[in-house]
Amino acid sequence: MIQTPYLLFLGDAPDALAAKVAQGIKDWRPEFAVGQFRMEGCRADMGLPDLTIAEAKAAGVKTLVIGVANRGGVISPAWKKVLIEALEQGLDLASGLHNLLRDEPELVAAAEANGRALHDVRVPSVDYPIANGKKRTGKRMLAVGTDCSVGKMYTALCVEKEMRARGLKASFRATGQTGILITGDGVPLDAVIADFMAGSIEYLTPDNDADHWDLIEGQGSLFHVSYSGVTLALVHGGQPDALVICHEPTRPHMRGLPDYTPPSLEQVRDTALLLARVANPACVAVGYAINTQHMAEDEAKAYLADVETKLGLPATDPFRFGAGKLVDALEKI
Amino acid sequence: MIQTPYLLFLGDAPDALAAKVAQGIKDWRPEFAVGQFRMEGCRADMGLPDLTIAEAKAAGVKTLVIGVANRGGVISPAWKKVLIEALEQGLDLASGLHNLLRDEPELVAAAEANGRALHDVRVPSVDYPIANGKKRTGKRMLAVGTDCSVGKMYTALCVEKEMRARGLKASFRATGQTGILITGDGVPLDAVIADFMAGSIEYLTPDNDADHWDLIEGQGSLFHVSYSGVTLALVHGGQPDALVICHEPTRPHMRGLPDYTPPSLEQVRDTALLLARVANPACVAVGYAINTQHMAEDEAKAYLADVETKLGLPATDPFRFGAGKLVDALEKI
Repeated sequence: MIQTPYLLFLGDAPDALAAKVAQGIKDWRPEFAVGQFRMEGCRADMGLPDLTIAEAKAAGVKTLVIGVANRGGVISPAWKKVLIEALEQGLDLASGLHNLLRDEPELVAAAEANGRALHDVRVPSVDYPIANGKKRTGKRMLAVGTDCSVGKMYTALCVEKEMRARGLKASFRATGQTGILITGDGVPLDAVIADFMAGSIEYLTPDNDADHWDLIEGQGSLFHVSYSGVTLALVHGGQPDALVICHEPTRPHMRGLPDYTPPSLEQVRDTALLLARVANPACVAVGYAINTQHMAEDEAKAYLADVETKLGLPATDPFRFGAGKLVDALEKI
Repeated sequence: MIQTPYLLFLGDAPDALAAKVAQGIKDWRPEFAVGQFRMEGCRADMGLPDLTIAEAKAAGVKTLVIGVANRGGVISPAWKKVLIEALEQGLDLASGLHNLLRDEPELVAAAEANGRALHDVRVPSVDYPIANGKKRTGKRMLAVGTDCSVGKMYTALCVEKEMRARGLKASFRATGQTGILITGDGVPLDAVIADFMAGSIEYLTPDNDADHWDLIEGQGSLFHVSYSGVTLALVHGGQPDALVICHEPTRPHMRGLPDYTPPSLEQVRDTALLLARVANPACVAVGYAINTQHMAEDEAKAYLADVETKLGLPATDPFRFGAGKLVDALEKI
């Protein structure tokens, strides 16, 4: 569990996209985002106060989160100077970088000398159990996708936001690095050992109040041959009561797989339900979350109306038009 | 790659079942099994010559394989004495135990001093790639099961044996510890990091001659919620042309999951085909491998006839009645 609130380290981000982790935290957990730290040449801006390490510490910050992708896979000397200063001032560090903080001897030494923690969220820190498949209390929604990177994390976060606005009990459950940094907790599923994947999701979504919703971030796709096993572990370990099917309509082929055509919404709905019902026979599909970022507004609305007509379930772009329709459907379960 | 041939270490096996790894090697790779090493109290016997370490070395043995499960999860001092002697005499060690050889300082020291290798097949020794889904040359059969431990490894080995007897090109591809020790090579899939599961199977079953068959050992089941993700990685990474559906008819519930009823053969066939065709649209089901070990012979034969009538594909217990029918069907692909 990462201590909050955060100072968002933007480093020398070449553009806004490189700082998407910081953006996610700012969008979804603004109460965690006390300030930002930018270095010379930084082209990203979260619109937060620029704080020195000392100012952040004084403002109650507990952890400096690396909210930016590093260039060339190296933690640069310029970064390291700031990170060491943060440790010396009493902040923990958290990172989702492939290059682990713990592999940098200077950071390890500074963390030890100052009694601080280095959180590498790309690596599991828990010995997860083998899944036992026992029915758990509480309700669970899983976002399943036609492909990778179609908006499953944003969908789950949008549903959480709408549920909380309605006074419902709801917890976003992160299964990827960005989601873990946003919420401070979760399972880095793609880095879990095969035998423990489903068990890690049971661990992540334990028994809860009967009227509580776990909103589980999806990963991969049952139709993406590189990662489908990870997805099925979520479907079976998550034991969902409800599926939201996520899709990005403008993609010419599966991400990273030029020879593979994305499946239809019907195929994903039917296959995911078939498999989900092994773990939870009552599982239903409640709606479609369409990522319309590459479509004009009228085009997007026409597409959503068309999906609703053809498939008979609510369809929305939850980030653009709100998750109200999806939550309406979930409230009926 | 483990060097062959082997001396099979049976230790102080309390019964024949404890020595099932040794039995598998003796059954499937008799040419690798030069002799056995039994300690006081050993109740298993492979019917092989009992050799001292020195005799094994003189007979050309390259590796001592631990062919027995250890009691209480500990490599006992009595075992260790023998294992160290083997290293000193110039043999490598290979083990599928949960307790790793490499975690025993005395064994590590003896291996280093004598320039020998310690093979812990439970742990991957390769950095597998992410699966790319590209169509590979050669043919592939995958054994898929209604449940765990229904005979998928034996089915693939039986098909390999029958194919080789017919002069066909065929390679059993091991995906579990026992299979790896039997053949000296393979992928310990249950221990692979989630993101690399499907890629490890692409690595295991690369391009091959157009008329060569890879016979891929299955793992888990699409209907076993603890391990289904591992199974789907095999279905997509293996890119099978043919599925053999494996089943044990007397099981009251899914292995380790008292609340889960085993699926029907039809369910497994349809679900596995649906998913397999994502990676290989030409994939077909060729037959059923029924593990009839708990059935009398006439009962077994009646069951097999019934499956053939109802499902319209060949059914056999390949270990009991031979894999001929399955290979007949595979030869037509």
